[in-house]
Amino acid sequence: MTPSAPPTAQLTEIVLARLAEVLPPGRLVIDAQVLDSYSHDEAEWAPYGRPLAVVRARETSDVQAVVRVCLEHAVPLVTRGAGTGLSGGANAVDGCVILSTEKMTRIVEINSVERLAVVQPGVVNDDLRTAAAEHGLWYPPDPASAPWSTIGGNVATNAGGLCCVKYGVTRDYVLELEVINGLGEIVRLGRRTAKGVAGYDMAGLIVGSEGTLGVVTEVTVRLRDLQPPQRTVAGYFSSIVDAGNAVEAIGASGVIPSALELIDKHCLAAVDKWKNMGLSVDANVVLLGRTDAPGAAGEREAQVMLAAFEAAGATWAAASSDPEEAEALFAARRLAYPALERLGPVLTEDVCVPKAAVPEMLRRIEVAAVENDTLIANIAHAGDGNLHPLLITDVGDAAARDRAETAFRQIIADALDLGGTVTGEHGVGLLKRDGLYQELSTEALAMQRAVKQALDPHGILNPGKVL
Amino acid sequence: MTPSAPPTAQLTEIVLARLAEVLPPGRLVIDAQVLDSYSHDEAEWAPYGRPLAVVRARETSDVQAVVRVCLEHAVPLVTRGAGTGLSGGANAVDGCVILSTEKMTRIVEINSVERLAVVQPGVVNDDLRTAAAEHGLWYPPDPASAPWSTIGGNVATNAGGLCCVKYGVTRDYVLELEVINGLGEIVRLGRRTAKGVAGYDMAGLIVGSEGTLGVVTEVTVRLRDLQPPQRTVAGYFSSIVDAGNAVEAIGASGVIPSALELIDKHCLAAVDKWKNMGLSVDANVVLLGRTDAPGAAGEREAQVMLAAFEAAGATWAAASSDPEEAEALFAARRLAYPALERLGPVLTEDVCVPKAAVPEMLRRIEVAAVENDTLIANIAHAGDGNLHPLLITDVGDAAARDRAETAFRQIIADALDLGGTVTGEHGVGLLKRDGLYQELSTEALAMQRAVKQALDPHGILNPGKVL
Repeated sequence: MTPSAPPTAQLTEIVLARLAEVLPPGRLVIDAQVLDSYSHDEAEWAPYGRPLAVVRARETSDVQAVVRVCLEHAVPLVTRGAGTGLSGGANAVDGCVILSTEKMTRIVEINSVERLAVVQPGVVNDDLRTAAAEHGLWYPPDPASAPWSTIGGNVATNAGGLCCVKYGVTRDYVLELEVINGLGEIVRLGRRTAKGVAGYDMAGLIVGSEGTLGVVTEVTVRLRDLQPPQRTVAGYFSSIVDAGNAVEAIGASGVIPSALELIDKHCLAAVDKWKNMGLSVDANVVLLGRTDAPGAAGEREAQVMLAAFEAAGATWAAASSDPEEAEALFAARRLAYPALERLGPVLTEDVCVPKAAVPEMLRRIEVAAVENDTLIANIAHAGDGNLHPLLITDVGDAAARDRAETAFRQIIADALDLGGTVTGEHGVGLLKRDGLYQELSTEALAMQRAVKQALDPHGILNPGKVL
Repeated sequence: MTPSAPPTAQLTEIVLARLAEVLPPGRLVIDAQVLDSYSHDEAEWAPYGRPLAVVRARETSDVQAVVRVCLEHAVPLVTRGAGTGLSGGANAVDGCVILSTEKMTRIVEINSVERLAVVQPGVVNDDLRTAAAEHGLWYPPDPASAPWSTIGGNVATNAGGLCCVKYGVTRDYVLELEVINGLGEIVRLGRRTAKGVAGYDMAGLIVGSEGTLGVVTEVTVRLRDLQPPQRTVAGYFSSIVDAGNAVEAIGASGVIPSALELIDKHCLAAVDKWKNMGLSVDANVVLLGRTDAPGAAGEREAQVMLAAFEAAGATWAAASSDPEEAEALFAARRLAYPALERLGPVLTEDVCVPKAAVPEMLRRIEVAAVENDTLIANIAHAGDGNLHPLLITDVGDAAARDRAETAFRQIIADALDLGGTVTGEHGVGLLKRDGLYQELSTEALAMQRAVKQALDPHGILNPGKVL
């Protein structure tokens, strides 16, 4: 399952010696247990190989040194941040060097006038948000992994989150990147000005490329003003399709919520089982809408969402501007994933469909669950049609795993059938490569391969991922 | 000045015969006068060659047919929309085929739920805005050329405009593109869903590539809700540097205006000379700020701008929510360019600098004007640091033209020195190629060339532009 043959003992020895030679002390790790812990991300089911070394880089010069050694000896290089990825994009290839940027945690600059931050790639998403807040500024992209995932990893997957429905994804915030390219050179791509069209958008191309076109060593991101206080509207629904209809109605109303999240009964039950919050007694599905529009506009948007919930058959719905009450509701959203993980390995799907297709897609996910006798829970960034069906199987139950894999493929096919994409925000990695081949035409895929070949001519950058 | 040698009479004959053979009637034009009118855009000073034919495409199939004929005979293909470009990006190369998409004016779909529009590339920017408004929706990018320029041309240059300071540029709105690629194949790039990371961002790469990586035959753009009513704040200043300081102060205040435009005394005088509006009597420089924040928030933002104007030394400043009064103020902004063109050929600069550098950049432009004895007027999207110094020379005065070219180069060097870019929204075309080489490192340029070579392996797509 790995794209390259294992290296000979002799090559391993040479590469390790070269790495030890070019790197400052404390960067190179070859302890087998450490190598093992760095050999995969959090994607269930994705295969991974054995790295020959891990390098914990601290500076751009460390990264460049590693890339050059890999170029010298045609050794695959797999870059990772915190390893919270969900598609296997950071999984080791046999005989690769794993480059971890998690120690590159310097916030180089926060600039209030230009409203930008310059950070090393290992800065944790929440840490950047906290640092920006001290200047009255805000970095919006907020993947569920925000307490652990790094900006470098977020750039690699073009990470999204709850607020994307209104505020966009990582690519919308990346201004400039420092990158070690496929020739081992340090390049600056993009710009720091508000606008610019000097040549092709290479920074935008690197975002979402999962370490296959270059290794990001510094990131300049746009910041916004701190988010205004939010109003929350919660709705309980007896069916997931009713909730889907409410989502579609909000889409048609013109209101763009600052978040619109869906949590189904399986998630609620798992949270109850763990935290005893009593949620699953009242609701089969919960929708949580938010608006951060100021003043009367926010009040109006909250009322529009409330009306949409009620018209779609909510069994209970209420608007609240009390932050504590809202926090309690969103706690269930945040707890859903860890609560489900207590039930067994969770494979997180990431399809994204047009807003009007949300009810039908949710219906088809239920069909896939029933037909394949698989527990599929749903959390969703419903407002932008980005659904995260969570497929849960018992450890060691091979037959259940087979059925779940069938359901997984069925969900991908259904999403494509409804005009959707196989990955909204987690990336292709290994899990969605087959899906990518279904989604893109042969000609469009060939263009992607041509770009890969052009920018990584020696094929050392995260080989076998994405394409 | 053109990158390819003129074609032989024999090749011309063969290519014209092939085009006549593959195209439906009424597409191919070889009339010398028509060829001449299609051989350049509106960039003063940019050289252009003689095309061997113009094709006015109506359908994707026409475009594909032309690209294939050009591939068969290694004939350069230069694509253009309305020809309102300001960098020579659409200028003919000797012996090229000019492909005009101006007749591809179909609005294929406007979708209120997904909030998107699908259009052929020849749809005029203002026409899309009007059509979207009928659905209560809005296409924000609003270059000054909006009454004439096409969405295809806007995509080619990643066009901006007045509202970009708050609402972003063309790339922020492009979801999906249909493109004829460098192999003559029809490909769909991007997606229609709100989010998606299935492979590299090829649609984003095509945006701003000025017809050098593919020919766009259909564009799917994101739409927003209709813009709310705006409040306007006007300020008169006695010096351009005072006005620049007001711009910097607004940047630091955290208010993001929905427009923040600067018009200098030369523009005001030219408008007065033409329309007798009496503007230049009262002000040396006018700043026009707008906010579309609803209710009290808008009132607050207007007051912040007003206070910034006054603190920076405005000789007069006032806020108004009266649309007619505001329109009169913005009329001067719109009339500035045509008014100046009455004085002589206008070369429009397009540098973009960090917001904090706006006062210093405006000062340096004044220095460049004085040192080179050149009339330089200024209009600027000041809020995002995108300045349009307008260099005016008398027709036929070669010495004046030489001095103006020196001033032009000096402004580019100053913008780069201040951390800016050589082009904010007009594109590289021919006029900014030298500037691009100054702005990007050798290694970053090589990456751009590698991408060009990968996607246009036969080198037929708008050769010699950008790179």
